[in-house]
Amino acid sequence: MSGDLHELMKNRRTVRNFLPDPVSEESLNRILEAVTLPPSGAGLLPYGTVVVRDSKMKQKIREGAQKVEIEYYENLSGRLKDKFDAMGVNSEKPFLTDAPVLLIIAGDTEKPYWLESTWLAIGYIVLAIENEGLGSVTYTPSDFTFINELLSIPDRFVPQVILPVGYPANKKPPKKSRPEGRVYYEECKE
Amino acid sequence: MSGDLHELMKNRRTVRNFLPDPVSEESLNRILEAVTLPPSGAGLLPYGTVVVRDSKMKQKIREGAQKVEIEYYENLSGRLKDKFDAMGVNSEKPFLTDAPVLLIIAGDTEKPYWLESTWLAIGYIVLAIENEGLGSVTYTPSDFTFINELLSIPDRFVPQVILPVGYPANKKPPKKSRPEGRVYYEECKE
Repeated sequence: MSGDLHELMKNRRTVRNFLPDPVSEESLNRILEAVTLPPSGAGLLPYGTVVVRDSKMKQKIREGAQKVEIEYYENLSGRLKDKFDAMGVNSEKPFLTDAPVLLIIAGDTEKPYWLESTWLAIGYIVLAIENEGLGSVTYTPSDFTFINELLSIPDRFVPQVILPVGYPANKKPPKKSRPEGRVYYEECKE
Repeated sequence: MSGDLHELMKNRRTVRNFLPDPVSEESLNRILEAVTLPPSGAGLLPYGTVVVRDSKMKQKIREGAQKVEIEYYENLSGRLKDKFDAMGVNSEKPFLTDAPVLLIIAGDTEKPYWLESTWLAIGYIVLAIENEGLGSVTYTPSDFTFINELLSIPDRFVPQVILPVGYPANKKPPKKSRPEGRVYYEECKE
């Protein structure tokens, strides 16, 4: 990797606009290797990964996602709605067809600490994606049932995230760390 | 960092035996910086971190943890019990007093995607710890109520993990990746 871990973490910004350029097999394989390296409950890696590159399937996933999102955004209010409005986030999810690769990470509910371990792994995966010079967004539709159906994922596996992966259409400035008010020493004083 | 991201991920092995050597302020501060760099629901970083270095407090945490663990291990059975037995994991948690630093990461239940975002962040944090040449274990007692009490953490925050941080007493060989049977292309075929 170029630079150090903190540089990688700072440069990793959420990407919602992708170039059509393909992701190489080498990059994809390195990302899929990283998927299996995180610590997990009893070392059981309680998740599976589905790689989607087929245009028609991506189109179906986008349609399925937008269908559930229209309802979600209509019912949204308060702080989260304001935040999403400011970020320009709405029920349109073009990144699901724009990105050359979608990774679906599904937790195996029969294994211990499956939810915690799956999301810890997603932390590894987004860094591995950034490390290839690629971008991603941790996209979580409000209902994943359509994903189980479209990808023939057994009910035991609950999809946790869709990660569109591709080259970012635009470059954002690096993140700033912001430890203020988030770290306490010896005990938590509010 | 020395080496690349995959090397870091492979070298990061769970550590339960720590040397008494202190963790430098510089290392601790770099780790605490990494805590604030992950992506999170609406960018709200839905967690707080408590740093514990006081010996008496570490002793109280160890006693509290072992108390809940004795009950947990007595009621454990099946695959998880076999796995823990093979790993030598039981209700004794000496790493809670051996490690010079404990980091408690507590999710803020009033923020969106708090559980997912907190565990994604823990993925970043364990890599940041490894990147300092330090080790950790993602220790999750079966009940965290005693932690809220001991550290005066408001009820709204639900502790997710105790990360003992220190220099490993012994060096394990790097992890091997194991993608077999965990990656599916286009759809999930069982």
